Amino acid sequence: MSKPPRVLAFDVFGTVVDWHSSITKEVTRFCPSVDANAFALAWRDGYQPAMQRVASGELGWTLIDDLHLMILRDVLKQFKVSTLTESEVVDLNKAWRRLAPWEDTLEGMQRLREKFMLCSLSNGNIGLLANMAKNAKLPWDCILSAEIFRHYKPHPQTYLGVARIFDVQPDDILMVAAHQDDLAGARACGLQTAYIQRPMEFGPTRFKDVSDNGLNTYHATNLIALADMLDA
Amino acid sequence: MSKPPRVLAFDVFGTVVDWHSSITKEVTRFCPSVDANAFALAWRDGYQPAMQRVASGELGWTLIDDLHLMILRDVLKQFKVSTLTESEVVDLNKAWRRLAPWEDTLEGMQRLREKFMLCSLSNGNIGLLANMAKNAKLPWDCILSAEIFRHYKPHPQTYLGVARIFDVQPDDILMVAAHQDDLAGARACGLQTAYIQRPMEFGPTRFKDVSDNGLNTYHATNLIALADMLDA
Repeated sequence: MSKPPRVLAFDVFGTVVDWHSSITKEVTRFCPSVDANAFALAWRDGYQPAMQRVASGELGWTLIDDLHLMILRDVLKQFKVSTLTESEVVDLNKAWRRLAPWEDTLEGMQRLREKFMLCSLSNGNIGLLANMAKNAKLPWDCILSAEIFRHYKPHPQTYLGVARIFDVQPDDILMVAAHQDDLAGARACGLQTAYIQRPMEFGPTRFKDVSDNGLNTYHATNLIALADMLDA
Repeated sequence: MSKPPRVLAFDVFGTVVDWHSSITKEVTRFCPSVDANAFALAWRDGYQPAMQRVASGELGWTLIDDLHLMILRDVLKQFKVSTLTESEVVDLNKAWRRLAPWEDTLEGMQRLREKFMLCSLSNGNIGLLANMAKNAKLPWDCILSAEIFRHYKPHPQTYLGVARIFDVQPDDILMVAAHQDDLAGARACGLQTAYIQRPMEFGPTRFKDVSDNGLNTYHATNLIALADMLDA
């Protein structure tokens, strides 16, 4: 039996909100002629390499809003979309602020919030996360972001920064994510970890392995199941 | 008629929560023999000079939780209290996480939140503010703190930091506070300002001038009155 956590820190894109179907819908609205599923995947696929350019020092510290816009411009070229005005491009980029929660998210978070301090720990910037939370009614106690630590996950300063902010030990924190690399980073810093299966994260055309790797404190089908496991 | 704001940034101690009566109650509980009103005032009076030691560079960057503890140790000596254990001192220091909202606060904030993005902009650290919000059920969209900007108000980087985080112009932000020096700092950065009268901020023994100085965008008796003024 593991020690009860005090703080739950959540990854957001893919874990709390369903970026694939939200982005696909918005792309369909802005660019009716493209393969919106492929466009959404290409946009998201640009995310890790873009953050890597910041982590390596090639780019200075850059907010995710701005990385998303850089990637979007490339993807629009790649998909030969030239019909959007500049203000439409900026508006489409704000689709990341309008992502919908997964079906279980609000109920799961509400239950968990009764018992624990709930914060985000996302690479998304604070403005993006706050607008998303307001739009989707995500009940955060506190929005934390890589922007505060000026390092992206999985840099240790992000996970250890949460412990510092709440003045708790690393193992008082449960990192909740649908991505094993994020959880591996958290574990390396001494946090407890919960893997959330999100088999449809990449939509219907790209397989995601959600099997239990045996390394996490919890392995849950969704956030309601996690609330059950934590007696919340 | 001023332009409608998009973001409301709130001072917290004294504006949103009633530190004087909450601290007085806690001091009475921990140190029944002292003049709790005088003790509370002395504790709070240590706040500006302590922040000034950080702003001047005499102390490195220090969280308010830690400044509160330094001041508390001095005030305990000054009031000749030697009966508290170390863990009781640490618990008494956490009284700042247990401050009660003013009577109008929750209703006022709920109404304002329907229409605007609500964030804190406090010199209190994030952990303190998040625990206070959870305890008092303050409905923030986002907790912002001097801790994020590593400067205390009224440093311009705090007010302009809010504009940067939300990607808005300074005059899209309405700074809400019960302190004219805070609002003067915000005005100097181009923010709109709302003064909230809190005549009882310092309790029954210390007078507070809450008259209208004519310099703020709004002058309101409380947060419900501010919601009325903003048609929220």
